[in-house]
Amino acid sequence: MKIGFLGLGQMGAAIAANVVKAGHDLQVWNRTPEKAEPLVRQGAKLAATPRAAAEGRDIVLTMLADDSALETVLSGDDGLLAGLAAGALHVSLSTIAVATADAVAARHASRGQRYISAPVFGRPDAAAAAKLFVVAGGDTADIARARPVLQAVGQRVFEVGERPSAANLVKLCGNFMILAAIETMGEAMALAEKGGVKKAQLLEAVIGTLFDSPAYRTYGPILVDERFRPAGFAAPLGLKDMRLAGEAAEKSVTPMPLLSLLRDRLLETIAREGADIDWSAIARTSARNAGL
Amino acid sequence: MKIGFLGLGQMGAAIAANVVKAGHDLQVWNRTPEKAEPLVRQGAKLAATPRAAAEGRDIVLTMLADDSALETVLSGDDGLLAGLAAGALHVSLSTIAVATADAVAARHASRGQRYISAPVFGRPDAAAAAKLFVVAGGDTADIARARPVLQAVGQRVFEVGERPSAANLVKLCGNFMILAAIETMGEAMALAEKGGVKKAQLLEAVIGTLFDSPAYRTYGPILVDERFRPAGFAAPLGLKDMRLAGEAAEKSVTPMPLLSLLRDRLLETIAREGADIDWSAIARTSARNAGL
Amino acid sequence: MKIGFLGLGQMGAAIAANVVKAGHDLQVWNRTPEKAEPLVRQGAKLAATPRAAAEGRDIVLTMLADDSALETVLSGDDGLLAGLAAGALHVSLSTIAVATADAVAARHASRGQRYISAPVFGRPDAAAAAKLFVVAGGDTADIARARPVLQAVGQRVFEVGERPSAANLVKLCGNFMILAAIETMGEAMALAEKGGVKKAQLLEAVIGTLFDSPAYRTYGPILVDERFRPAGFAAPLGLKDMRLAGEAAEKSVTPMPLLSLLRDRLLETIAREGADIDWSAIARTSARNAGL
Amino acid sequence: MKIGFLGLGQMGAAIAANVVKAGHDLQVWNRTPEKAEPLVRQGAKLAATPRAAAEGRDIVLTMLADDSALETVLSGDDGLLAGLAAGALHVSLSTIAVATADAVAARHASRGQRYISAPVFGRPDAAAAAKLFVVAGGDTADIARARPVLQAVGQRVFEVGERPSAANLVKLCGNFMILAAIETMGEAMALAEKGGVKKAQLLEAVIGTLFDSPAYRTYGPILVDERFRPAGFAAPLGLKDMRLAGEAAEKSVTPMPLLSLLRDRLLETIAREGADIDWSAIARTSARNAGL
Repeated sequence: MKIGFLGLGQMGAAIAANVVKAGHDLQVWNRTPEKAEPLVRQGAKLAATPRAAAEGRDIVLTMLADDSALETVLSGDDGLLAGLAAGALHVSLSTIAVATADAVAARHASRGQRYISAPVFGRPDAAAAAKLFVVAGGDTADIARARPVLQAVGQRVFEVGERPSAANLVKLCGNFMILAAIETMGEAMALAEKGGVKKAQLLEAVIGTLFDSPAYRTYGPILVDERFRPAGFAAPLGLKDMRLAGEAAEKSVTPMPLLSLLRDRLLETIAREGADIDWSAIARTSARNAGL
Repeated sequence: MKIGFLGLGQMGAAIAANVVKAGHDLQVWNRTPEKAEPLVRQGAKLAATPRAAAEGRDIVLTMLADDSALETVLSGDDGLLAGLAAGALHVSLSTIAVATADAVAARHASRGQRYISAPVFGRPDAAAAAKLFVVAGGDTADIARARPVLQAVGQRVFEVGERPSAANLVKLCGNFMILAAIETMGEAMALAEKGGVKKAQLLEAVIGTLFDSPAYRTYGPILVDERFRPAGFAAPLGLKDMRLAGEAAEKSVTPMPLLSLLRDRLLETIAREGADIDWSAIARTSARNAGL
Repeated sequence: MKIGFLGLGQMGAAIAANVVKAGHDLQVWNRTPEKAEPLVRQGAKLAATPRAAAEGRDIVLTMLADDSALETVLSGDDGLLAGLAAGALHVSLSTIAVATADAVAARHASRGQRYISAPVFGRPDAAAAAKLFVVAGGDTADIARARPVLQAVGQRVFEVGERPSAANLVKLCGNFMILAAIETMGEAMALAEKGGVKKAQLLEAVIGTLFDSPAYRTYGPILVDERFRPAGFAAPLGLKDMRLAGEAAEKSVTPMPLLSLLRDRLLETIAREGADIDWSAIARTSARNAGL
Repeated sequence: MKIGFLGLGQMGAAIAANVVKAGHDLQVWNRTPEKAEPLVRQGAKLAATPRAAAEGRDIVLTMLADDSALETVLSGDDGLLAGLAAGALHVSLSTIAVATADAVAARHASRGQRYISAPVFGRPDAAAAAKLFVVAGGDTADIARARPVLQAVGQRVFEVGERPSAANLVKLCGNFMILAAIETMGEAMALAEKGGVKKAQLLEAVIGTLFDSPAYRTYGPILVDERFRPAGFAAPLGLKDMRLAGEAAEKSVTPMPLLSLLRDRLLETIAREGADIDWSAIARTSARNAGL
């Protein structure tokens, strides 16, 4: 298929490489074009604007840092909205607000373009290995159309409803749950350590049993070894996601005290450790607050 | 081996049955002797007092509701301390306070008796299937001696240190982590449901991926179907464990805000739903507080 | 002085009436002009647009529901910015975001107009009695110029710094502190009541002593009598203020766990009681959660 | 009247001095008798045991550090229970658990002795100035009998019910409310400071208006000046009171999330600052967590 790809950050570049590998005809755009070089060497074409990258494509994928980066790429004479053909499909992989996804879907619809949300779970290494989990929301036919591409970048695709933004809500829930698991391990490890049990021993006993799953397996060793820099997912990005979850919660009038606790933990961690630290360093904050 | 077993509640009876099945010579005692009948039919002998059940035994296992039940069984002329031979081993499976385990260990030591803590993870069905996870703390030789019995009742044994109470601390950490996972799912499900995503859809997407582990697999469906009665683990028992964890945290000066949140959730759930509800019903409280 | 006044809600109307009473020449505007009738009968002139109300005035006061209402009144051909003379002063009494106040100040400055923030503490009855507390931020000379008007509507004026938005930040802090006091009383009253002490007895003992101040004296009896409807200050307005405080906290990287607790309490109260209830009904939520 | 007084710590010594000044015949006891010297110089007699201090007295007041210190003084051959005449009255000024007060009341009743709880609000300087607030619980006639003494040591006496322990519950509520006010000021000050508003300016604006009461007037300046050492009321004592409140809350099934937050704050403050710091230093923790 003729694919466009906008946004070649750490995650986007890894995903786009898997799209090329799967044999698709890829046209890419990035704000700083240098980042496209490895892809161009693999056969992708570099476009000068989002519009140019979208023109003549069946599907355009976007992987951008936040809502405002997506807005910039969408709008204006050089934007994605101007370039995408009627009937062509925009697949948004970014973690964005529920309300933003609803608005973007409506703008595409008014031009006869198609839109689905397909945010992903996984860190950069999972993206490189095509082991992402993809959560897809939107029209069943649109998801079916995108499926070959989504399967080229992830190990599994979950459909969560006809409204595209449902996928964004599930993605925010998932990130909330990951950070909650980190906080949980952090507090338990602080208690164990102050009681004379080694962090690694505690985690072996609980992860080897009740919590034997990717989220705990990924973050457990990071917490034990305190590998917080360089950040795989920086604390301010985690804070952004918790804020988006909080906005959705406030809009739907849903109290979430654990989400609130996580937001304050991230703020505390950023204030004390700096903005370049991994979001999982909230566990260090638990340790520090216990005098460790 | 010659084994004694004190405490035949839902968990204890299931465990004791597996000890008999493994071919050990079992002598049992329970406050209400009627509960011993199925075991007696399987070949166990019924003793009239804890002391009688302990006399002449190599190892005595106890599985009691709480610290004070353990104290009652230990002390007095008819108690376990009076009956256990010098050099014989008491294996405490109960979820008790860290400080209590330290005290019990000291009392056994002063009589030349051995003691290890070996609390277990798993609900009654796991106990019946000999699929418990056992966390053992104490002298390495003592744990080795108890291992054949522990392996007869569980699928795996974790050693966490030479101090028996280390195992109790790990057990409390584990229960804290389970309840934290329940709270996490409960808040996420409330947010999803108010945003138009079905609870089951959310859980499939996250448990099928990041959280594919026994704790989430066990409780996820209970939360989706709201199977809170009859209670597999009643909320007041969960509250007791969170209180024990909180006492350990206070004693070691470890702030644990998520633990505090869980305690308040359990209190709220008991106040509004009654004491006969499963501890996982804190997820219903999240839903109710969102107006669901 | 020649005064303009925009926004004649419950608070604005009461304040404007005191400006007239103090002998100032008042020109008013409101989105629904009917609300201006009592003021017109007292001698105020009714203007057709914010611009018209501002033209030829020394000082224009605004008292609007939120940031977007202020934005609407400021902008466009009929707006306050278009009508205010160079050198004339805009005094914003509304509770708005810190960032909004900074932005409004900059827009006035670029036109040679003056701006101060002067949010007020007090419920409608205090406004009617000219007993408000005014928190003023901005250039000292500007505050001095506004002082005669501010003293006509309040019992005391506090200056908190040269940056206008400093006053908005203090106002948000104050509202946070009031709601924190309500939460505090609510939890204490629930504990007392469940322990057999009457709510009124508890409050007499603590308000008659340690907490003998307007915030506690105002809200204590409301809580005891559960006078939550009609709302003096509706829960969604309280939630808006807590959100503004939260945005300021996030921007300045300040964790505020008590603020987070209050936000969740308001969400819970709105979800369970409806949006027409007073913000102080978070105390009812404390009682309900204890099974009262 | 013939008065006995047990417990001459910082608070007790100041209170006992006012009893002597009021002209009562005073017999005192303290664990370390040296502390009694200033009182003996004022005319008090020193007794060798709690029993001796109680014998022949109409009323015996106790002011002890905690429940276990009270227990030590009450029991045994040399204890208060043994010395107090039938019909004589024990007035307990200490901050103790609700359950302890109930138990002590029952023990006195079984000997025909009278008992009331009369805990006090106020720091040592208020005690010295006879400006304490006294909360009295118990039989009306017993309170009437103690009133001359209570009025000699405090500025006002509140009666809160016929059950002595009601006064202890109110006292715990009061201490909870004070610490909640400190947390509130601490968070607001951190937000203000990070936004460029001085702590003193914020407090002047809010304490000069809405919060003009002893609790805020006492602690506000301590927070602004960070006068946390030497401790007027050490953090571990505050933690003890919050634990007692938490025990009462758990027993009556009352969720109190703000109380939980305060407990964790004290733990965090003790872990990071040491046990010798004033409980109001939780405000420093708020500042530190914001990077100040």
